[in-house]
Amino acid sequence: MRNAPLTHAHGRDRLAGTAPLRRPGAVGGAVAAGPGRAPVPAPVAGGTHPLVRGDENASLGAYERGVKAAFDAIKPTLRRISALQHEAEFEIQAQRVARMELGFTLPESLLADAWVDQLDMRRLFAWSVFSTYRRYCDDFFARDPLAAEDAETFDGFLRGCGFHTMDISPCADGRLAHLIRYVLRLPHRSVRRKSYAGALFDIEDSIQKWVETEMLRCRGGLPDTAGSVTRYLKVVAYHFSSGDPTREGCAAHGSDTARAASAGLERLFNFQHAIENAFCCGATIDLLLIGVDTDTDAIRIHIPDADGEIDLDRYVDSLDLFTATIRQDASRARHDIQGAIMESAPDAAPGMARLIEYLIENNFSQIAYVRAYHGKSYADIGHAERFVGAGIGFEEIQLRNLMYFAYLSTVEEATQDLDVGIGIFTRLNVARGLPVPVVVRFDYHGNVPGARARAVERCERVTGALQARYADLHRRGLLHVMQVVRDCNGTDPIEVLACTADAATGTGGH
Amino acid sequence: MRNAPLTHAHGRDRLAGTAPLRRPGAVGGAVAAGPGRAPVPAPVAGGTHPLVRGDENASLGAYERGVKAAFDAIKPTLRRISALQHEAEFEIQAQRVARMELGFTLPESLLADAWVDQLDMRRLFAWSVFSTYRRYCDDFFARDPLAAEDAETFDGFLRGCGFHTMDISPCADGRLAHLIRYVLRLPHRSVRRKSYAGALFDIEDSIQKWVETEMLRCRGGLPDTAGSVTRYLKVVAYHFSSGDPTREGCAAHGSDTARAASAGLERLFNFQHAIENAFCCGATIDLLLIGVDTDTDAIRIHIPDADGEIDLDRYVDSLDLFTATIRQDASRARHDIQGAIMESAPDAAPGMARLIEYLIENNFSQIAYVRAYHGKSYADIGHAERFVGAGIGFEEIQLRNLMYFAYLSTVEEATQDLDVGIGIFTRLNVARGLPVPVVVRFDYHGNVPGARARAVERCERVTGALQARYADLHRRGLLHVMQVVRDCNGTDPIEVLACTADAATGTGGH
Repeated sequence: MRNAPLTHAHGRDRLAGTAPLRRPGAVGGAVAAGPGRAPVPAPVAGGTHPLVRGDENASLGAYERGVKAAFDAIKPTLRRISALQHEAEFEIQAQRVARMELGFTLPESLLADAWVDQLDMRRLFAWSVFSTYRRYCDDFFARDPLAAEDAETFDGFLRGCGFHTMDISPCADGRLAHLIRYVLRLPHRSVRRKSYAGALFDIEDSIQKWVETEMLRCRGGLPDTAGSVTRYLKVVAYHFSSGDPTREGCAAHGSDTARAASAGLERLFNFQHAIENAFCCGATIDLLLIGVDTDTDAIRIHIPDADGEIDLDRYVDSLDLFTATIRQDASRARHDIQGAIMESAPDAAPGMARLIEYLIENNFSQIAYVRAYHGKSYADIGHAERFVGAGIGFEEIQLRNLMYFAYLSTVEEATQDLDVGIGIFTRLNVARGLPVPVVVRFDYHGNVPGARARAVERCERVTGALQARYADLHRRGLLHVMQVVRDCNGTDPIEVLACTADAATGTGGH
Repeated sequence: MRNAPLTHAHGRDRLAGTAPLRRPGAVGGAVAAGPGRAPVPAPVAGGTHPLVRGDENASLGAYERGVKAAFDAIKPTLRRISALQHEAEFEIQAQRVARMELGFTLPESLLADAWVDQLDMRRLFAWSVFSTYRRYCDDFFARDPLAAEDAETFDGFLRGCGFHTMDISPCADGRLAHLIRYVLRLPHRSVRRKSYAGALFDIEDSIQKWVETEMLRCRGGLPDTAGSVTRYLKVVAYHFSSGDPTREGCAAHGSDTARAASAGLERLFNFQHAIENAFCCGATIDLLLIGVDTDTDAIRIHIPDADGEIDLDRYVDSLDLFTATIRQDASRARHDIQGAIMESAPDAAPGMARLIEYLIENNFSQIAYVRAYHGKSYADIGHAERFVGAGIGFEEIQLRNLMYFAYLSTVEEATQDLDVGIGIFTRLNVARGLPVPVVVRFDYHGNVPGARARAVERCERVTGALQARYADLHRRGLLHVMQVVRDCNGTDPIEVLACTADAATGTGGH
């Protein structure tokens, strides 16, 4: 792939062609309800509710459609090219089609052999998915299309609510990948996201993050000094399907909503107890449990009472509130959100209640977004990811159903998640003769000497382990891997190390 | 193994039979040279030099001999039992021999089948090694035989030298397993030890430890407050063989002393730069590089100058100093140690110089120890480990050449270390028809909810991965694994989960 420069400037480039999005949020001055919130948003397209931000929906929608269209153009384009393969001047024609439809040209060497044998469509498909992923990443890091202008205001708002850090663990399911920036409308660099199958986050990893956070507060006064009374807020986001609850819920919990919620809550309590037991001076954290309906993106928030206790049966439902307040004016609707929270947990901490109001109001825009662009619920309520991501990183993945994510350091520890992912892609791709495209990615801290070299080594090790575990797919050219690293300290683009779909370095062709 | 209780109380129990050791150190009051140091130690057996602590050597020697004798009795005892297997009343005779020579009885079921087939000596051998290991651990955690009475004094001394934490990474080679308690004579619970092949410690892991340490200082004032001017001291201990430098040095560095030293130094600098780059407010650490001659246990210390710079060619050699001062009185010998350090690095920080004086004086006792009990150098200058340890934990391993240690979370990341270990045991054991005994062990923090369950899961996963990687050995009954967890927050004994050598749960018999 390194031999074939990506032609951003040519053709109908769906990514580059997308007009830079208007930065969402920050339409007016800050008001009590949250940072960068307009007092009374004007009614706009897509906004059926007075609290819905139509401009933001329009720009988020354009971005999502642009990215997905780029991926979804691959199959029909390659089908057209396949039909041309025995025609005169095939290579010229094929490159013309590819440039026009995909925005890049295909590797000459993969086209050149078509007259001898037939085109290696599996390799071309994987190569195209990887190229599109790379362009998507380059766009993300160059243009920052999902930047939130209200990020700093949000940080202050969060501290005002009593939290110096918001650490969210959603399920790794691709249908929750847009949780931060779309479902909750939060600035994605202001919160920590770490996804796990079933939202069952790693307690030891979270303790490390808590320790680091407290150390930075102590030593550097970042984001606030240790003397401040703010706390670390850990959030779990489990999920369910309102339309098909027993089949399209969380696979890790057997599509059982009650199990998903109680397992998430148990993990939260265990994390809290771990901090309280292991550290001195009254160390503790705050907890929040959120359920997401992956059909509509509506949320239910289980509101902690004054003692921080969370009840699985006590929650506010954003869709109920959305429906109940749709004909009101903005200030009355906000008043009713506050009322519902008060009713659910009369003694909730005021800061926690403010944060929950903010999240519910934010989610109203997403409910309207789904309705405006997808109807009553998503058409793809099931899995429809375009590729698998394995490793550590993937900050740019803020879109729904784009990538199946397996957060891992080793294949050995993540066989369960990976088997699920390969199973999904066996149905989505392999059953149609198409390969599973896997991006193996390890982000590193560029200011730590040797960190890049270690990330490169990890990429190679994990790639080898994947090819060994799924040896049959690999041998049949049905598993393609692109290895990627990125310095997460800067704004640099991703760095592609190797790719099995490349003509030169490729292995595993059929 | 759970079915056959270990019979601590019976027979000639080499471990239980060892008289409780006199606690080393703390012979007299503290003096300037270090904690718990007698002003003028009386000359005693094994102490040829005025600064050598003969009492300590005697008790450390008795402990080491007791433990090793317990392991080394296994082969001859099983050979005797093997010779009896077709005699009348074999089982009664065998148990009598086992009880007398090993201090425990063998599983009835393994003996009962001898009349049908022949004795499964591989399984009996592995079972005996694991039983002995378990008794060794139980003794260690119950009796604390290596406890240093001067531990608290040492902590204060270390802070007085300007260090709140001493974090040592030796090579994982079994010939350095006694570095802390024997070679450097430090209280083993007062320093952090994390061993890596070639002493090439994991920088990210060390950063985490630094962060945790600084957080505890900030929040809890432990071990001192963040306002104190003490620093984190990271030490690397590489090794070499004075007698056979090109063959018995560090395998990870091709038995090249210069390479071992420079790789260790580079890793130290990289860690320091990582801390300086990644954290604010002038964060930094101090560094120390130590070389160990595994033939004699003498050390060379590369003394940092006033700027913390370390020169590979500038060091003091403890054996040279030992020889030069052997006929002097204690205070003159100490004076000469100070002089040698001053000469090597005239502008060394006074606290660093004091710590180095202390380490060299401590090491004099170990030089005398090796001379007294092993002659000019160890007889086993090569590998002679009794079993492999894989995982995280093993605090009790403070003895030389007892265990080959592969520090790991997954087999996938540690294949290199494991292959070396299996290679060593292929020569030591498999070549003689004996199996490789592997203890898979994960220590956990009992105050973290779910931590034990996760440690148990890790044991199972790593055991499975080992059996898959070394499938041929496993199939032939030449790889036996005992799974162990331990709560490292308390003084509890180890907990044995499963053991392939057990009659009931065993697999992999030949």
